[in-house]
Amino acid sequence: MKICDGNKACSDIAYYFSELCSIYPITPSSPMASNIDNLRQDKENLFQDKVKLIEMQSEAGAAGAFHGALISGSLASTFTASQGLLLMIPNMYKIAGEMLPGVIHVAARTVATNALSIFGDHSDIYATRATGFAIISSCNVNDCQNLAAVAHLSAIKGSIPFLHFFDGFRTSHEISSIKELDIHKLKDIIPWEEIDKFKNRALNLESGIQKGMAFNEDIYFQTQEARNTAYNNLPDMVNNYMQEINKIMGTNYKPFTYYGDTKATNIIVAMGSVCDTIKLVIDEEAKKGHKYGLITVHLYRPFSVKYLLDVLPKTVKNIAVLDRTKEAGSNGEPLYLDIVSALKDKDINIVGGRYGLSSKNTTPADIKSVFTMLDTKLKNNFTISIVDDVTHTSLPKEDYEIELDTKDLLIYGFGSDGMVSCSKDILKIMGQKNYFVNGYFSYDSKKSGGVTVSNLRFGKKKIEAPYYITRPSLIVVTKEEYFKKFQIVSNIKEKGTLIINTHLTEKEINDFLSSKIKKILKERDIAVYLIDASKIAEDNKIRGKISKIMEMVILNTLKVNEALTILEEGIKDTFKNKGENVINSNIKAIKEALKNVVKINITLDDTASLEEKLDVISKINHRLGDTLTVKELEPFKDGTFPNGLSRFEKRQVNKVAPKWIKENCIECGRCSFVCPHAVIRSFITKDE
Amino acid sequence: MKICDGNKACSDIAYYFSELCSIYPITPSSPMASNIDNLRQDKENLFQDKVKLIEMQSEAGAAGAFHGALISGSLASTFTASQGLLLMIPNMYKIAGEMLPGVIHVAARTVATNALSIFGDHSDIYATRATGFAIISSCNVNDCQNLAAVAHLSAIKGSIPFLHFFDGFRTSHEISSIKELDIHKLKDIIPWEEIDKFKNRALNLESGIQKGMAFNEDIYFQTQEARNTAYNNLPDMVNNYMQEINKIMGTNYKPFTYYGDTKATNIIVAMGSVCDTIKLVIDEEAKKGHKYGLITVHLYRPFSVKYLLDVLPKTVKNIAVLDRTKEAGSNGEPLYLDIVSALKDKDINIVGGRYGLSSKNTTPADIKSVFTMLDTKLKNNFTISIVDDVTHTSLPKEDYEIELDTKDLLIYGFGSDGMVSCSKDILKIMGQKNYFVNGYFSYDSKKSGGVTVSNLRFGKKKIEAPYYITRPSLIVVTKEEYFKKFQIVSNIKEKGTLIINTHLTEKEINDFLSSKIKKILKERDIAVYLIDASKIAEDNKIRGKISKIMEMVILNTLKVNEALTILEEGIKDTFKNKGENVINSNIKAIKEALKNVVKINITLDDTASLEEKLDVISKINHRLGDTLTVKELEPFKDGTFPNGLSRFEKRQVNKVAPKWIKENCIECGRCSFVCPHAVIRSFITKDE
Repeated sequence: MKICDGNKACSDIAYYFSELCSIYPITPSSPMASNIDNLRQDKENLFQDKVKLIEMQSEAGAAGAFHGALISGSLASTFTASQGLLLMIPNMYKIAGEMLPGVIHVAARTVATNALSIFGDHSDIYATRATGFAIISSCNVNDCQNLAAVAHLSAIKGSIPFLHFFDGFRTSHEISSIKELDIHKLKDIIPWEEIDKFKNRALNLESGIQKGMAFNEDIYFQTQEARNTAYNNLPDMVNNYMQEINKIMGTNYKPFTYYGDTKATNIIVAMGSVCDTIKLVIDEEAKKGHKYGLITVHLYRPFSVKYLLDVLPKTVKNIAVLDRTKEAGSNGEPLYLDIVSALKDKDINIVGGRYGLSSKNTTPADIKSVFTMLDTKLKNNFTISIVDDVTHTSLPKEDYEIELDTKDLLIYGFGSDGMVSCSKDILKIMGQKNYFVNGYFSYDSKKSGGVTVSNLRFGKKKIEAPYYITRPSLIVVTKEEYFKKFQIVSNIKEKGTLIINTHLTEKEINDFLSSKIKKILKERDIAVYLIDASKIAEDNKIRGKISKIMEMVILNTLKVNEALTILEEGIKDTFKNKGENVINSNIKAIKEALKNVVKINITLDDTASLEEKLDVISKINHRLGDTLTVKELEPFKDGTFPNGLSRFEKRQVNKVAPKWIKENCIECGRCSFVCPHAVIRSFITKDE
Repeated sequence: MKICDGNKACSDIAYYFSELCSIYPITPSSPMASNIDNLRQDKENLFQDKVKLIEMQSEAGAAGAFHGALISGSLASTFTASQGLLLMIPNMYKIAGEMLPGVIHVAARTVATNALSIFGDHSDIYATRATGFAIISSCNVNDCQNLAAVAHLSAIKGSIPFLHFFDGFRTSHEISSIKELDIHKLKDIIPWEEIDKFKNRALNLESGIQKGMAFNEDIYFQTQEARNTAYNNLPDMVNNYMQEINKIMGTNYKPFTYYGDTKATNIIVAMGSVCDTIKLVIDEEAKKGHKYGLITVHLYRPFSVKYLLDVLPKTVKNIAVLDRTKEAGSNGEPLYLDIVSALKDKDINIVGGRYGLSSKNTTPADIKSVFTMLDTKLKNNFTISIVDDVTHTSLPKEDYEIELDTKDLLIYGFGSDGMVSCSKDILKIMGQKNYFVNGYFSYDSKKSGGVTVSNLRFGKKKIEAPYYITRPSLIVVTKEEYFKKFQIVSNIKEKGTLIINTHLTEKEINDFLSSKIKKILKERDIAVYLIDASKIAEDNKIRGKISKIMEMVILNTLKVNEALTILEEGIKDTFKNKGENVINSNIKAIKEALKNVVKINITLDDTASLEEKLDVISKINHRLGDTLTVKELEPFKDGTFPNGLSRFEKRQVNKVAPKWIKENCIECGRCSFVCPHAVIRSFITKDE
């Protein structure tokens, strides 16, 4: 098994099939380009050569270089998302028109509208659907690897460029245990003949050909129709390569796949990570005798009605098509329109809905509400996961959960405190202990200093649950301040564990925590541990470096065999270039951690804490933005916010505060210059 | 009546509703920006102010400035097409998300694929359909004016940006007699309240607001749905303004309009200039008792099913949707998908087809073939106007023509010889004589030096026939060489007239013309006139300036009252800044023209001219590219052509040739540098 995220799984394959990668970094696709850069240190591509990597001035330049490389006969790839992909559109039309076998891997991300968002949906992908690129969709980290190979192989074979995408953050940054594809097993299926043809039609000084001409009205139309055959043949080619991958990997890819009851009447059609959530709901409902199904779209373009009909059960009566975009003013979202037209001669009711815009968490309960809608009263143009109390598009929320056979951890960290790296390390260690692992990291766009929440799952079976952990059995909090702002323990499991990094004592933390929180901890019989990791770090001269200390405490709580030894080895490896002192300090610190973690009793008191009445902006700051309805957010529909909001957002997370020493001040004014919140201001005054 | 082209009709209105226009010129939209620049010399906008015009570094910059102007509270417009529009896409998503009332006027043009094309189709428009812009479609020059006003008014009222488009070249450059919209009549319907609101929500230092923020996954989705109301209300607003314009102009605009038999079973749905051709066919077929219909889409986004159903006859059984684009890999073109989804619950058969890519001439015969298909056997994914002998998408060509009640002229000129200006002048004069006029100019992309064909129609009724003249009664040819290359007289009407500018005599021209051509002239009783305009120009010291001379001959042939006086006045006006000499020379020349034009007899001979067997590239050079089938053009499907084609394209149109005078040569090498065909080459040699 290989433990990696979607970006890594995909770009490992892209490296093999590329001679040149032209790039410009954009969240959440940047790690793919970084990985290419790493791989070129010691890996070779299918030509036994190193990949050439060029960073351009923007994604428009990256697309131009990609186009140029292809037209001059180099197999080229690029990696992008969102605004970056929009900048590639002009070249994409050209590359498709010129039938060049390039591949763009996209960590799909919201296109900026009333606001930008670094998070994931399919608005960027859909913006390119007219370009003539073939489009392949991956649902999870496994697919990222396997379908990346299908994309590259098919592009070469069919002489049509491919866009391969997966959900930004959700899949691009999700860490999962996957079965590794041995690249050497692909050797027999590489279309060498087509590679030769591609090389032979390259534009160069000797080729005697020209490209990029101007056509007039006399011949343009005919030459567009002359490419029909290439597109008509493509679904079969893609399917063939999927079958080859299936042979090697034991998977079951097809242009469209069906999952669920073969006699289902009500099914969902979707693409991307949500498909795995839908499968969980189908399985859960099957236990109760409900017959639901899912058609996963893997080959979105060319859209093949033949392959769709191949998997569509004859029993189907109602279909809900889920689109991860909103095209304002349209009569339905893109995939919905495709499915309606593909099935227009069938007697099937089709409705369309939106979900997951900008990484909105899509839960089994949300999916259940779609099936309930199909079972009861059809509603077109619906939404899930939100409350639309203005135009009433949203389906009613259901109280529904699926118990996964996994151990679920939530780790609240402070951006840049190392808790995400700590979490990734825990995943690696659990993977070595033969667990299937799955990790997803909820950041906000505030970069360092914001809150990070690591969602970790371990289990003895493959874990494909692309939504946030709802019932953690272990919660770790590195800043006690977070208890004041965020609802941290409200969903903790009975008999679960809570680990708090704090300088407070048992008595002090009991005074600090609200009675509401303590009531939960007491009623659910939660084991609460305190550790002052910050002090241990400080004592061992590694101030602020709490991640290894916390990792030790967590592994110990998880009762991982030989955790201390493993972590010691890990520290030696991680800090091998930092010198003996750092290594010894960290090892000493983790040993002290084991001695200093204390289990405490929670003492209830009767002082009922006042429920704070939060306004919209405070709710956003308290991580309650998900609960805001459309009406509550209507004032911000055009992206306008009042100024001066950072004063409502005091983080209160720093343990130290600067003090102005009058005698030392040379009045350079830099303090004023660097303070991002303009808290320190310089004034020129007179002596009096 | 106002005689102007679509660009002028549209931008006259845009001027009135704009405070700022940010632009970057691109064919065929550039004249709109030029017109704005002209109007700012002496016209005022609705704020009694001059419009500010800014030319940026590219359309990406024009879109950014457009966005910036809007967000800071200025009513802004821009003008673009094709690649330029693609560069605006990122800003378009933002502008729509921020609900800013800007308007982009687009002379719709092909997006470059295997080749660029300066000609028209809707691929650029469709590339923006996901952005959230409202989209309004004009069919002809009248609409360009009237619906431009609807777009601006609705944008302000609804606080949603609009894209207003019309067919590039076909409508943007077509000259037509239109009823002028008196801008002052709009004063009462300007939404001043919304203008105030727009100004009040501008971003500036005093506003206390911020825009262009980053939203996270918690609130992004809800704020997208919060804009639903604005889009839901928009079709009614647009319809209201259409009704206001209808009151002023006596038109009959609606979001969708119906034309034809109210009990039709077979109808077409389309947008853009083709609608006028479809109407002609419907009227012609109605005479024969055939009941056909057309739904014209004027409001493409938001797509309103309500307004569509309002006009759809209950009797309709079969619909052909015409899309002026090809989205390779899709399951149908965009308008087709919309219509299928809008009517999915109706028992109506719907097929989709492509037409007019890159300004491919769409004739009544092509439209007739669509109705024939609907009457006989439905075929989806069809094409018209071409022969697809590879994937067999094309409908069979029909022998079908509609006799318009117009006088039809074809004028073959040599790019830059002034014959297009001459044609436009003739249209103006005929307009003054109370004729409805219509002119369209077929250029190729070779700019000056290529052949230009002016298609002029005059009549006593409104002329809306957006396709090439097929049966001209008067043909003018300024280069006898064209008879060798192009099929000039094959479609000339019985008893028509042919005017040739040539230095050849009656005998010489009889020797020069092929027996095939002479047979046509003789059999159809064509009056043939010769004029040596080039010599007259030379004699009067206005060498090369043949346009006024030819204009005189043409007006005389058309028997225009007081033609000489009109033309003399015209010359005085046109050349008023060029001095008395130029005016007098031209006046003298046109008088000589009247004396020197000679009617000749055509003498038949028996020497059967050999039919040339042309290859594909020669056919393109002989203006026969339209006859090439998909199979013939298949080798060029990816835009690859052999090098060195200009040697097959000798124009043989120049009357003089340069001669190298050895004694004068200083060996600067500039002759080699400027020759575009590398006919003159410099070599460095040794003395021996």
